[in-house]
Amino acid sequence: MLTNGDVERWLREDVGHHDVTNQVPGDTEGRLVAKEDGVVAGLDAARAVFEYLDCEVRLPSEDGDRIESGDMVLRVEGPAREILRGERVAVNLAGHASGIATKARRAVEAARTIADGVRIAATRKTTPGLRGIEKRAVAAAGGDTHRLDLSHMVMVKDNHVAEMGLEGAISHFRERASFATQLDVEVESPEDAPRAAEAGADIVLLDNMTPTETERAVELVTAADGEALTEASGGITVADVPDYAVTGVDVISMGALTHSAPTLDLSFRTG
Amino acid sequence: MLTNGDVERWLREDVGHHDVTNQVPGDTEGRLVAKEDGVVAGLDAARAVFEYLDCEVRLPSEDGDRIESGDMVLRVEGPAREILRGERVAVNLAGHASGIATKARRAVEAARTIADGVRIAATRKTTPGLRGIEKRAVAAAGGDTHRLDLSHMVMVKDNHVAEMGLEGAISHFRERASFATQLDVEVESPEDAPRAAEAGADIVLLDNMTPTETERAVELVTAADGEALTEASGGITVADVPDYAVTGVDVISMGALTHSAPTLDLSFRTG
Amino acid sequence: MLTNGDVERWLREDVGHHDVTNQVPGDTEGRLVAKEDGVVAGLDAARAVFEYLDCEVRLPSEDGDRIESGDMVLRVEGPAREILRGERVAVNLAGHASGIATKARRAVEAARTIADGVRIAATRKTTPGLRGIEKRAVAAAGGDTHRLDLSHMVMVKDNHVAEMGLEGAISHFRERASFATQLDVEVESPEDAPRAAEAGADIVLLDNMTPTETERAVELVTAADGEALTEASGGITVADVPDYAVTGVDVISMGALTHSAPTLDLSFRTG
Amino acid sequence: MLTNGDVERWLREDVGHHDVTNQVPGDTEGRLVAKEDGVVAGLDAARAVFEYLDCEVRLPSEDGDRIESGDMVLRVEGPAREILRGERVAVNLAGHASGIATKARRAVEAARTIADGVRIAATRKTTPGLRGIEKRAVAAAGGDTHRLDLSHMVMVKDNHVAEMGLEGAISHFRERASFATQLDVEVESPEDAPRAAEAGADIVLLDNMTPTETERAVELVTAADGEALTEASGGITVADVPDYAVTGVDVISMGALTHSAPTLDLSFRTG
Amino acid sequence: MLTNGDVERWLREDVGHHDVTNQVPGDTEGRLVAKEDGVVAGLDAARAVFEYLDCEVRLPSEDGDRIESGDMVLRVEGPAREILRGERVAVNLAGHASGIATKARRAVEAARTIADGVRIAATRKTTPGLRGIEKRAVAAAGGDTHRLDLSHMVMVKDNHVAEMGLEGAISHFRERASFATQLDVEVESPEDAPRAAEAGADIVLLDNMTPTETERAVELVTAADGEALTEASGGITVADVPDYAVTGVDVISMGALTHSAPTLDLSFRTG
Amino acid sequence: MLTNGDVERWLREDVGHHDVTNQVPGDTEGRLVAKEDGVVAGLDAARAVFEYLDCEVRLPSEDGDRIESGDMVLRVEGPAREILRGERVAVNLAGHASGIATKARRAVEAARTIADGVRIAATRKTTPGLRGIEKRAVAAAGGDTHRLDLSHMVMVKDNHVAEMGLEGAISHFRERASFATQLDVEVESPEDAPRAAEAGADIVLLDNMTPTETERAVELVTAADGEALTEASGGITVADVPDYAVTGVDVISMGALTHSAPTLDLSFRTG
Repeated sequence: MLTNGDVERWLREDVGHHDVTNQVPGDTEGRLVAKEDGVVAGLDAARAVFEYLDCEVRLPSEDGDRIESGDMVLRVEGPAREILRGERVAVNLAGHASGIATKARRAVEAARTIADGVRIAATRKTTPGLRGIEKRAVAAAGGDTHRLDLSHMVMVKDNHVAEMGLEGAISHFRERASFATQLDVEVESPEDAPRAAEAGADIVLLDNMTPTETERAVELVTAADGEALTEASGGITVADVPDYAVTGVDVISMGALTHSAPTLDLSFRTG
Repeated sequence: MLTNGDVERWLREDVGHHDVTNQVPGDTEGRLVAKEDGVVAGLDAARAVFEYLDCEVRLPSEDGDRIESGDMVLRVEGPAREILRGERVAVNLAGHASGIATKARRAVEAARTIADGVRIAATRKTTPGLRGIEKRAVAAAGGDTHRLDLSHMVMVKDNHVAEMGLEGAISHFRERASFATQLDVEVESPEDAPRAAEAGADIVLLDNMTPTETERAVELVTAADGEALTEASGGITVADVPDYAVTGVDVISMGALTHSAPTLDLSFRTG
Repeated sequence: MLTNGDVERWLREDVGHHDVTNQVPGDTEGRLVAKEDGVVAGLDAARAVFEYLDCEVRLPSEDGDRIESGDMVLRVEGPAREILRGERVAVNLAGHASGIATKARRAVEAARTIADGVRIAATRKTTPGLRGIEKRAVAAAGGDTHRLDLSHMVMVKDNHVAEMGLEGAISHFRERASFATQLDVEVESPEDAPRAAEAGADIVLLDNMTPTETERAVELVTAADGEALTEASGGITVADVPDYAVTGVDVISMGALTHSAPTLDLSFRTG
Repeated sequence: MLTNGDVERWLREDVGHHDVTNQVPGDTEGRLVAKEDGVVAGLDAARAVFEYLDCEVRLPSEDGDRIESGDMVLRVEGPAREILRGERVAVNLAGHASGIATKARRAVEAARTIADGVRIAATRKTTPGLRGIEKRAVAAAGGDTHRLDLSHMVMVKDNHVAEMGLEGAISHFRERASFATQLDVEVESPEDAPRAAEAGADIVLLDNMTPTETERAVELVTAADGEALTEASGGITVADVPDYAVTGVDVISMGALTHSAPTLDLSFRTG
Repeated sequence: MLTNGDVERWLREDVGHHDVTNQVPGDTEGRLVAKEDGVVAGLDAARAVFEYLDCEVRLPSEDGDRIESGDMVLRVEGPAREILRGERVAVNLAGHASGIATKARRAVEAARTIADGVRIAATRKTTPGLRGIEKRAVAAAGGDTHRLDLSHMVMVKDNHVAEMGLEGAISHFRERASFATQLDVEVESPEDAPRAAEAGADIVLLDNMTPTETERAVELVTAADGEALTEASGGITVADVPDYAVTGVDVISMGALTHSAPTLDLSFRTG
Repeated sequence: MLTNGDVERWLREDVGHHDVTNQVPGDTEGRLVAKEDGVVAGLDAARAVFEYLDCEVRLPSEDGDRIESGDMVLRVEGPAREILRGERVAVNLAGHASGIATKARRAVEAARTIADGVRIAATRKTTPGLRGIEKRAVAAAGGDTHRLDLSHMVMVKDNHVAEMGLEGAISHFRERASFATQLDVEVESPEDAPRAAEAGADIVLLDNMTPTETERAVELVTAADGEALTEASGGITVADVPDYAVTGVDVISMGALTHSAPTLDLSFRTG
């Protein structure tokens, strides 16, 4: 959840102790305008910045809308000094979130050409301080937020398996986790995938497998247990999405959605 | 400056209320290892995360070092539970900062093939909450931090000029700004550049000019005033750097260094 | 996750601007001792308070241990002034958490006399600011944390059903929620329970039903869908637990575990 | 004093990063309604939660009012999404504070059956983070807040007396404390009580004494010094209040008012 | 109470995003040395700054010590970079607090030439954010902290009296205030002073009276009620202290102790 | 930049947990009135306090205005309770800032009697937590803010020179500092001043020199390099200003503007 405390930190970081530049009397209006095509997101964050500064905001778009160069996505009215103070932070937030939404939408569309149901999911590889904004940008673009924090879902990883064995680790965490919390179990080979499913994994994470291995793992899991989901993960790019989508995997998770999306070019115009 | 309060927010954001996954007894060690070549940065931030969790950190590298795939850049010892808790935040920070440093280094090297003195500078287009980390990553890579916040340098922009005229705006802000604060004056045409320099600009920002226009503006400023610096700005990519470097401009500023650098792939290994 | 920022707020709240009482020179030691039987919890929080004040802490017990009157659960050494400053906050935290753990253990034991598998779960009816401490106290006592925050699990409630119909509401949220996030669907009559299960509920929440109604709903759900869990909820007390446990329901959730547990009487002794 | 920063922390704790459940368009209204009889408190805190979320609040009741099951104590209008986000935190706060007020009122009434002047006071055994809310709930119910923090009043305790003697400790702190700060001196036997009064105690705290011992101590203090107040303390329950009230003691302080009051059952209804 | 959060804010305020100046390798030591005679205070705050930066601090002096030009009051060892970062904030804090302690000591000594018992007290006219440091500096110098915050003592002021009458206002607040909280009642004429004392004032504040009026008021109060203290207040300077001390008043409160004390000149030397 | 978080801390510091004094029903108005002549500042901060408390503020004055005893500088309307809560913090802030502005104005006027261009500058010797307010008060009075934080300008100090030599230190930092960041180089003798200027200092700081030495240094710098500014610093008082202004120095910096300005006497009147 975005709070005023976040907005304060961002503004203070950008403004400093004495901003001579923006000491402009009177009221003005500003417009946040796209300079390239994409998918808009982060509008709530941009609005929160201006509302903290007592400006009035209208949003002709909403998160997840496809926009074209020239489209206005936010309009703000208020004291010129406050609008100028908030401008850079608002653009940085909306540009960053829209870059992520644009990339996520491309991945979702790449998947849709092949399969209707497969989910394109973000990971915990987010920018510290901006997890909520980034996850919500992925969701707005039609992607899946995946687990929001460490407490949201248990991830059984290779080091747990090394220590307790696959079945041992799954049963260890199944006992300790709430019924409200699912188990995502990482396996390193297609053959381990059905073992994980049978041992109680809610999701079987197929780690760093090729599309061929992934397809094999999906088949084995389906044969073993009709309930467990399968998830492909590990350095998958937008270009790789179709190759994974065709395997029948349920989820394709991609760190790059949040850690390597270039900004969407947005411009702020006043007056 | 990075504080414990920042580290707390990042950890709390990632951990949530009850992280079953990482409840592992005993001590362990972890290593942050590069999975691709690049320039490392953000090590202070990664260290701060682990030190907040009472782990002991050693840094075989320092910010700005060129690293190769397989190089270890940070080593940490401490309680397994704490190391596992800090891992993701530390990797996210260092990967993000190293991605920026890697991009900045590429831009600096592209400039150096042409000109020794030209500076590659970041802008205020940084990720909210991470300005210091990002600016320091650019500096570690040999780039220039440019102004750190609104109060650091006065930027005279087109709307100021529209209202007060070029000379009027410069004199307006010169009176109001401290002697410790320089004036960076944005001009839209090569012909306005020497006017700005003569009117007292410390830096003349050549906004959205082609390399040819930039060269013309630099010549005019040099002829008019030997002291003012010139700065090229506006959507310049790493590929564009040589074309601008050859113009004789003093500074090439690039928002993309901070807003569109993909992460550098780093892996965290324990045990 | 508990942070130093939390500890600071609690200490500042209790200490004020000038605490004459505790200006005592030299070092001392303190012991946190039970004055009644129960289950201990909140030890991490108590330790964090003293460690923030640079005292050294040892824990002869751990969260979830059954303790008897006279047992020492925490021992601290350090400057007398700091130990005296931390004492009240540490006792308040550990007493509060231990009171919750003691009540949760009683509920779990009441359930175990009847059924091995039924889970005793907390709710979101926690004390603002202490959710993590309270949820972890329930877990330490053998209870289930249930959903940790609004984002952890989707709760489909009567107002959603009123607006979209039962199946409509479930399908609406199933589309919007991550695969990592389960759906807990509230129903008001036993007959609605299997409808919810068939429509995709991961958990069917049987709201304010008598044990007889609960038993009927469990039978209907089991007949309809072997996968969905059932949860009894609504003003259930420890005394009511056996009557619900016998119904075959999977989860019994009780707000009273966290909102109405009396403190466990702990005493802090120095010197 | 309750601040927006407190409200932010409580909401963020409950909402998490992406609350799918409450994404409901349009405006609505909500009513906080009692489900059992008692004394209401915490309304300022509940109001602050909704006002932070830009909803409009009306309070037909005020803190300290006796309410009956079915009574509406708060009404709120605003965006459905914001009302649903604030609901749980507001109910948790008001239920907790009202539970304390209800218990405090019972204690006050038990005292009033015996003596008009005796005060029922809370202690520093409050829930970390909620001291102000809990102390104000006690005050609203007709109780006494006692000392608000360590700096508010000096408490001379057994360890001080062990070190400096009773008279020595009192004179030690009398010198160091402001004239604005009173001295509450703990004694372990009725015979020490008049010594404390004569040595300058503003209040003599009769620690863990039976009603009979308390009565004896009160008589001795009255005989020795007409000014010092007497305070009975140590595990006193509501049922014990009359026995202490009859002793003539001035203050009966009870940790249980704040650390062991069950919530008052409040329900939030929307639409 | 001083917290790490305070230290963080002060350091961040002074350091900014990228402090080139202090990037010095290796360890060093620093000494805080008086450049003029006075009374030292604020050493805890200065120490906290350096300890936050992981430097080791020794204090050859303690708050309240009289020091002479050339005396070393704090010695710190640690990484040069950290010592240089903390230096300015530590000096600013200690210089400010020592300036207050020096002024308070002068006032106390001026009073002691006349009367042994009269207290020199600070007010709530402190620097926002530094109340604790300033109040403790006054106490260290032998002054009295007076009320620490609005909740510490009730001040009955002229506007209350205008509304409810003197006796009415006193009885109004006596009922609402805890037994732990005293009443300080402001009167505008000597004749009102004994009325306030008789109506239950713990302290009678003689507002803006001349020494002659003050003496008259003290006599009247003493005649009327042996228990109430008297306090002179209103623009009293150090030079005025003897004239008020001779009146027999119990407390002389002076806003100037905290709002108008020049810094004590301290110098920080490294290497 | 002043944030709501700052206002919260200041109010909480002053109010405490239960302020009986100000529980006054109804609305009122308040006026902040000068009780002595001076220059007003800090009005933004005072306004922010009342606006946080949902009161309405009008400012008949603005920062930097000369005011006379009796002038009203701020008027506020709102709930009596909130106005009474904010009053003390608002007066403390505005009185403190106005005291600084008044002192700065005196220094500026003392300089103007001699030289039109010389700047009177503040230093980093500000009150921790109030840097922005204090620097802006100096600016409002016609003074110069000087560097706002460590990152704003590089200060080359005697210890740097001892280690690397004057030219070495300047070149060391010139390489590391951004083009946006100037170098202020401290010299201890008039003879070093032109060396610093020639080596690239933007400003030459003449440390602890007499007016005669200062004049000599200014002449030498002017002869050597027409661009570098000169700055006199080191214990300069308002009375010393004319002697330094006459030397031709460009900047006179004075720590006393912020660390030793007595408050300007302001009174808050309600009703």
